[in-house]
Amino acid sequence: MLRGIIRGHIVSTKKQAALVGSKFMEVELMKNGQLTGEFIIAVDSVGAGINEEVLITTGSSARLALNNTSAPCDAVIVGIVD
Amino acid sequence: MLRGIIRGHIVSTKKQAALVGSKFMEVELMKNGQLTGEFIIAVDSVGAGINEEVLITTGSSARLALNNTSAPCDAVIVGIVD
Amino acid sequence: MLRGIIRGHIVSTKKQAALVGSKFMEVELMKNGQLTGEFIIAVDSVGAGINEEVLITTGSSARLALNNTSAPCDAVIVGIVD
Amino acid sequence: MLRGIIRGHIVSTKKQAALVGSKFMEVELMKNGQLTGEFIIAVDSVGAGINEEVLITTGSSARLALNNTSAPCDAVIVGIVD
Amino acid sequence: MLRGIIRGHIVSTKKQAALVGSKFMEVELMKNGQLTGEFIIAVDSVGAGINEEVLITTGSSARLALNNTSAPCDAVIVGIVD
Repeated sequence: MLRGIIRGHIVSTKKQAALVGSKFMEVELMKNGQLTGEFIIAVDSVGAGINEEVLITTGSSARLALNNTSAPCDAVIVGIVD
Repeated sequence: MLRGIIRGHIVSTKKQAALVGSKFMEVELMKNGQLTGEFIIAVDSVGAGINEEVLITTGSSARLALNNTSAPCDAVIVGIVD
Repeated sequence: MLRGIIRGHIVSTKKQAALVGSKFMEVELMKNGQLTGEFIIAVDSVGAGINEEVLITTGSSARLALNNTSAPCDAVIVGIVD
Repeated sequence: MLRGIIRGHIVSTKKQAALVGSKFMEVELMKNGQLTGEFIIAVDSVGAGINEEVLITTGSSARLALNNTSAPCDAVIVGIVD
Repeated sequence: MLRGIIRGHIVSTKKQAALVGSKFMEVELMKNGQLTGEFIIAVDSVGAGINEEVLITTGSSARLALNNTSAPCDAVIVGIVD
C-alpha cells in the first residue's frame, strides 16, 4: 500500500457509468513520514477528507474495496492513519 | 488513477483484432495540476479529445471500461476533468 | 518480490472492514543488500517485527498470502530473510 | 500502453514450455515521439520487426493478445504504429 | 519481461507455506545489454544459476510459471538468455 496526504478533490462530470458517485481524491505520497511531491488519484472508500493521512491500495486489489467491484478503478483509499 | 492532458492520437493500422476501433491517445501526465513531461498511451472510452484533461485507469482494471473486456489493453481514459 | 527492512508500524483505526486485524508495516527497500531510502507499506503474514529483513510480494499475488484473499491489499510480507 | 522502437531480438533456448515459439523483442521506449533510453522485453503478436515503432500492452492484459493466454508473459507488442 | 544477471541467492527459512521449496534469486536488471544497478527478487523456474543472464516475468502472469499457481509470488525467472 501507499501512504499519503489528501491534497484535493477532482471533479469529472463526464465519466464511465460505473464511476458515477465515486469521489476522486488527489493524494500526495509520503515515504517514512516525509512528503515526496509525487501524486496519485484514488477513490475514497472510508470517508476521508482533505489533509487527512491515508493508506491507498493500488491495482486490481483496489477494486475489492468498492461497492461495485467491476468499476474501472486502480487506486482506492482503504484506511485513515491515526 | 492518473491525470493528464491529451497531446495526440496514435494511428496503428496493423494491430490485434480486439483493438480494432480503439482510439489510442497519447497523454501527458500531471501531478498536483502541473505537467510532468511523462507520457502514457491510453484508449479513450468517454469521447475525450486533444487538449482535454482526463483521468486514466491502468492495469487489469482498465479493461473493465471497454466494450470488449478481453481486449489486450492496459490503460483507458475513464473520465474528463471539469 | 522486493526485499527490505521493517522500519515502523502504521496504525489505522478507520479502515476497510476486510483489513481489520491486518498489521501494516512500513518497509525500507533494499537493492543488492543496500538500503535505498524508498518505502512501501505491506501487511505482515509471517510474524515479522521491526528491524527484520523481509521479502514482500506485491500486486494481486500479494492477496494469496492472506487469510482473506479478497481483502483490498496490494503488498504482503511473505518471508523473513535469514 | 507503451510506445517504442524495436531494437533487438533476444534468444532463449532454455525457457518455460508455454513460451516456446514466442519471439522476444527488446524495445526502446518513447515519450511524445522522443526516445527515452529505457527498455522493455515484449513478445511479438503482430509480426513486427527491428526498427519498427510499436505499441506494447503490459501486465495481465498482455496475455490476452497471445494464442496461449496462460503463458507467463507480462508484455506483448499489440500494434505497429503507422 | 525484464532481463538481467543473477547476482545472488536469498535464504528465507520462515516464509509462507506456498513458497517452501522456491529458490529466491536476486537479479540485477539490464537495459539494451547494459547493467542498471537496479535489482529484483525472482523465483527460479528454469534451473538458472548465479551469473546467468535471464528473462523475468512480473505481476500475476509470473505465477503461471510455477507449479503452484496460487503461490504469493510476483516475479519468476522464465528463461535463460543464450
